[in-house]
Amino acid sequence: MKLPSYHCGEWLEGLNEGVEVYNAINGNLVCKVNSDGVDFKRMVEYSREVGGAALRKMTIHDRANMLKALAKHLMSKKDIFYDIAAQTGATKVDSWIDIEGGLATMFSYSGIARREFANEAFIVEGGPEILSAKGSFIARHILTPKRGVAVHINAFNFPCWGMLEKIAPSLIAGMPVIVKPATATAYLTQAMVKEMIASGLLPEGAIQLICGSVGDLLAHLDEQDVLTFTGSATTGKKLRSHSNIVEKSIPFNMEADSLNCAILGETVKVTDPEFDLFITEVAKEMTVKAGQKCTAIRRIIVPAAKVNEVSQALKLRLDKVVMGDPASSAVNMGPLAGRDQCLDVKDAVAKLSDFCKLIYGGNDASFKLVGPDTKIDAFYPPTLLLCDKPLTIHAPHNIEAFGPVATIMPYDDLDQAVEIARLGKGSLVGSIVTHDDKESIHFVFNAAAYHGRLLILNRDCAKESTGHGSPLPGLVHGGPGRAGGGEELGGSRAIKHYMQRTAIQGSPSTLMAVTKEYVAGANTSSSSSHPFRKYFEELYIGESLTTHRRTVTETDIVNFGCLSGDHFYAHFDDLAAKDSLFGQRVAHGYFIISAAAGMFVDPAPGPVLANYGLENLRFVEPVAIGDTIQVKITAKKKIKKDKRPEEKKASGVVVWDVEVMNQHGTVVALYDILTLVERLSE
Amino acid sequence: MKLPSYHCGEWLEGLNEGVEVYNAINGNLVCKVNSDGVDFKRMVEYSREVGGAALRKMTIHDRANMLKALAKHLMSKKDIFYDIAAQTGATKVDSWIDIEGGLATMFSYSGIARREFANEAFIVEGGPEILSAKGSFIARHILTPKRGVAVHINAFNFPCWGMLEKIAPSLIAGMPVIVKPATATAYLTQAMVKEMIASGLLPEGAIQLICGSVGDLLAHLDEQDVLTFTGSATTGKKLRSHSNIVEKSIPFNMEADSLNCAILGETVKVTDPEFDLFITEVAKEMTVKAGQKCTAIRRIIVPAAKVNEVSQALKLRLDKVVMGDPASSAVNMGPLAGRDQCLDVKDAVAKLSDFCKLIYGGNDASFKLVGPDTKIDAFYPPTLLLCDKPLTIHAPHNIEAFGPVATIMPYDDLDQAVEIARLGKGSLVGSIVTHDDKESIHFVFNAAAYHGRLLILNRDCAKESTGHGSPLPGLVHGGPGRAGGGEELGGSRAIKHYMQRTAIQGSPSTLMAVTKEYVAGANTSSSSSHPFRKYFEELYIGESLTTHRRTVTETDIVNFGCLSGDHFYAHFDDLAAKDSLFGQRVAHGYFIISAAAGMFVDPAPGPVLANYGLENLRFVEPVAIGDTIQVKITAKKKIKKDKRPEEKKASGVVVWDVEVMNQHGTVVALYDILTLVERLSE
Repeated sequence: MKLPSYHCGEWLEGLNEGVEVYNAINGNLVCKVNSDGVDFKRMVEYSREVGGAALRKMTIHDRANMLKALAKHLMSKKDIFYDIAAQTGATKVDSWIDIEGGLATMFSYSGIARREFANEAFIVEGGPEILSAKGSFIARHILTPKRGVAVHINAFNFPCWGMLEKIAPSLIAGMPVIVKPATATAYLTQAMVKEMIASGLLPEGAIQLICGSVGDLLAHLDEQDVLTFTGSATTGKKLRSHSNIVEKSIPFNMEADSLNCAILGETVKVTDPEFDLFITEVAKEMTVKAGQKCTAIRRIIVPAAKVNEVSQALKLRLDKVVMGDPASSAVNMGPLAGRDQCLDVKDAVAKLSDFCKLIYGGNDASFKLVGPDTKIDAFYPPTLLLCDKPLTIHAPHNIEAFGPVATIMPYDDLDQAVEIARLGKGSLVGSIVTHDDKESIHFVFNAAAYHGRLLILNRDCAKESTGHGSPLPGLVHGGPGRAGGGEELGGSRAIKHYMQRTAIQGSPSTLMAVTKEYVAGANTSSSSSHPFRKYFEELYIGESLTTHRRTVTETDIVNFGCLSGDHFYAHFDDLAAKDSLFGQRVAHGYFIISAAAGMFVDPAPGPVLANYGLENLRFVEPVAIGDTIQVKITAKKKIKKDKRPEEKKASGVVVWDVEVMNQHGTVVALYDILTLVERLSE
Repeated sequence: MKLPSYHCGEWLEGLNEGVEVYNAINGNLVCKVNSDGVDFKRMVEYSREVGGAALRKMTIHDRANMLKALAKHLMSKKDIFYDIAAQTGATKVDSWIDIEGGLATMFSYSGIARREFANEAFIVEGGPEILSAKGSFIARHILTPKRGVAVHINAFNFPCWGMLEKIAPSLIAGMPVIVKPATATAYLTQAMVKEMIASGLLPEGAIQLICGSVGDLLAHLDEQDVLTFTGSATTGKKLRSHSNIVEKSIPFNMEADSLNCAILGETVKVTDPEFDLFITEVAKEMTVKAGQKCTAIRRIIVPAAKVNEVSQALKLRLDKVVMGDPASSAVNMGPLAGRDQCLDVKDAVAKLSDFCKLIYGGNDASFKLVGPDTKIDAFYPPTLLLCDKPLTIHAPHNIEAFGPVATIMPYDDLDQAVEIARLGKGSLVGSIVTHDDKESIHFVFNAAAYHGRLLILNRDCAKESTGHGSPLPGLVHGGPGRAGGGEELGGSRAIKHYMQRTAIQGSPSTLMAVTKEYVAGANTSSSSSHPFRKYFEELYIGESLTTHRRTVTETDIVNFGCLSGDHFYAHFDDLAAKDSLFGQRVAHGYFIISAAAGMFVDPAPGPVLANYGLENLRFVEPVAIGDTIQVKITAKKKIKKDKRPEEKKASGVVVWDVEVMNQHGTVVALYDILTLVERLSE
């Protein structure tokens, strides 16, 4: 019955009896949670020395592929997790969000990392910074993994997703993790970590788990570690001001309380589809996970004239909620995670009731439970309050009842609605439901600074909308102020939170050697064979080719214009061209890059399979009739990639720097071309 | 003699006598500093309500132009600042770094903002995030100014630069500032702020100044404010753990102590140019600003076998230091900022001497001062220590003597050098001097996680190098751990620190309306005239043109290949093309985009002045002989820009989304073209 921690390569039961955790539906004992006996100092060192060292030997793509394999493996075991999750009171839908939503986040991060970053152990960010007139001194920014451990202290409401959304970016960045789930639902997190360890897909030390208290863990963290926290503001403040965290400037990311709002647009009529969308969204956000979501709608901000319609419609919708054991198919809302959570909600509703009118549900409401073996302790009914004067009554902007509870607030005009929204003092997410873009724009630019995410919901996007309450891997998650001031997810941004950004200064050649990317000014060299005759592995960064020359003639311009159909006056009309930017007829820019290809392409079949794209093209100077051009291409960057089943040949991406110069040595066009180059080996 | 604060639109002398500040050279009283009487609550409100409101009405380019004008104005008054700076003990070079370096940073930020961001009051970051299968629900990230005030608490060593490098990004972001300079040199900061106010170039409330204590200011900050600090770790910790800062998750950025290192590469011979470069760099970093730079070299890490050579060479170089009143041209090092600073340095050197051997200078060294009216109190001589066992003796890694003081540390191999460097527990900057790229790479990838910036210095870049100690506007400044864990500068990154990032979700059309950028899936419409016939102001985002069609024939391929010279086998060799990725001969990608231009270009002179660039081109599908293509172009983004004197016509940038489709409606090529479009008005 004791829930073990995973500690320095071993599962370890707590020395003492521990906190008893009960099944949310029937009150049966599930397990006891205690971490006494864990050596937190050793644990931290083990992460850094064993897990960190192993992860840093891998490239970002290696780590991303590892996570993909892990997510696949866990997905194949999902039934185990659904079964265990049932004890937390979760419905199928609730568990789907937590389990499959979490694994989907892991898959997403695997893809994001492989798509956006090179297959190296570091990230190059942004372009070269030119720091000198002649270009012999430049800089680039790189990101390397922090050489410590990422400690993730998580909330009880998403035992799987809450862990996965944080460990995915940490591990891809190259940082090992220590996961500390909230006690109430730690057994589900533990079950998933157990499968991770059993899979053997992660290097030893990449993940450790604390079931129970974190003891003196924080005292052992240092400058290279990272601490993240999701949970109550009270605990968050303690962690943020912990002497060792402050002393060593240890990065701390927090996601805390959030009194998210949803606004019904002023322009929305009761007969508009947006009115229904609003009611559906609010009711859904109140009842999914029994309202135990950091992103749930707590404040329902509606035009004063429509308070009655909204209240009525919401009540009708909430009447359809069937509470009980989600094992029964009729049930669409389960209990809260436990008795303690239910007491917290009752307490919050009692406080809110002092300032707001209870109009539905509440602490004294009677309700039925479906299912043979249900105990009332953890169940709480959907509850609506009404706050008449939301600008002056502060309770509903400050008190978060973490259950199926929300407060309706009337507004007179959109400015007032924004003002009410802002009284949340920083939220994870806010929504406006309207089909009027002017209204959306007004809301967005006045409310965005108070929110990490804003949803504009209307008939055009509702069908495919993921909804107010869903954080998504590609979008930032976190809000200012009360919401904790942190930032999670947001695509590749999340990975960078676990890395150190460093500006590297030096000569272009040195920076090319460091970053494995050619930059202007670095030494280039050519070999005896044409670079298009070389396989991916044979090409080196800085390998270049300077072509023969070509004089651009009047005939070229005419032929090119007639062939392409582009008879723009700057190429064809002597009179107008004289008055133009160019002062004379000039060659088509597209002719210059076509002729450039004609000069650098090697026609016979070879390792270069295709030129599939082009980036950052600038026509720097016009090419006039009689000018002579010459091209220099240089291997700029190589990106190893996995062979996909549908591909005949294994290949990698080679980016080439292309410089087209005229007879004066002046650059006339600058760009990168992207090619697929065959590999010698798979 | 009292130094006034600038408070709610008025200059206000402190009610009480205040702290006396003395001329560092001769000990004469300069001023008294006291902020009693400042109403900090009102001050904060004034910033938010007056300054913030005014700034938010401007676009980012407006604010950038305002800063450019301000920097120009201050540059025209620079002599005033040089004169005042002399009292701080600064040499001409020291003042140049502080005054002109600071103004150059302001100019830089003006340029960065106008170059990298659209001329709007918000920033769009990254591309669209596609959140749904059919594309009707997407998201984008925007950044909007935080709606509070940025409070900057600065250090004494850079009274101008320290202010300017922080207010430039704050003001461009749209946040008003309250500047609190360190008392010792506040009179120089005050003089510059006075000129800013007098210039009338900033909107009222955009800047306020506190000369003296910050009183209860921190208690009045809220969720939308930002606090930054440069100074000692001790003060920094107090600020970071201030109850109101913690309570409200107020963003706090700190730059604190840093025991920066410079490493002489293992491969460097005494006769190599790198040996001299190392000695010169270390001596310079020790003596510029009398060593009072957060980025100065404190730890000189050299191969054990070269300790003697390095010590000797450094001593010879330091022998050339002439101390005294910088008004005398012979003087190349001034005093510390004051008597207190000198006492701090003496104290630190005394502590260091308990663990390290003093080999040059020191507390008891005698020295001469040049200049008729010099008082010894604030002067401290260049001082070298030697630490024999840097891996076990921790004092020189922990104690920062903030003056012309550094410690030599021997290493056995490069891994050990890295280990020693890391003992600094997080630094702003580290240097390695070597001409061996292997050595650089080893150092960078093992030390980067501990540094905000790394300099690789050698003969190739030395001539143009800005040096170990110079933070630059385009590069991140800040380091992990002991250095405070903050990040300043770094180009546009710095501006974003004062803005809130928000993910906006909705339909493509709504997001186009919000962000003023066309995204795929948004409603487009065409008007009766060709979009190339419209002036900048007349074009609307989402305005599109679908062209006539063109069948691509075998003749086209042959003509295009012969004209361009590109006879790649995929276009010309039936046999090889069959075995290729494409399975048959296909048209040149460059032909497709040329023909596309032929279809969408309107030939007669008109408002479209030039197509000067192309971005994100992807050849998505091959075009085979007989395929018929058609093009849709859509106005994607408009960027207003200022007319430069050399330009005949006022114009703006219009980015067009280009989609080339085949007869099946499948996209074959996708890209953006950049055009210059004439404006109706300047």
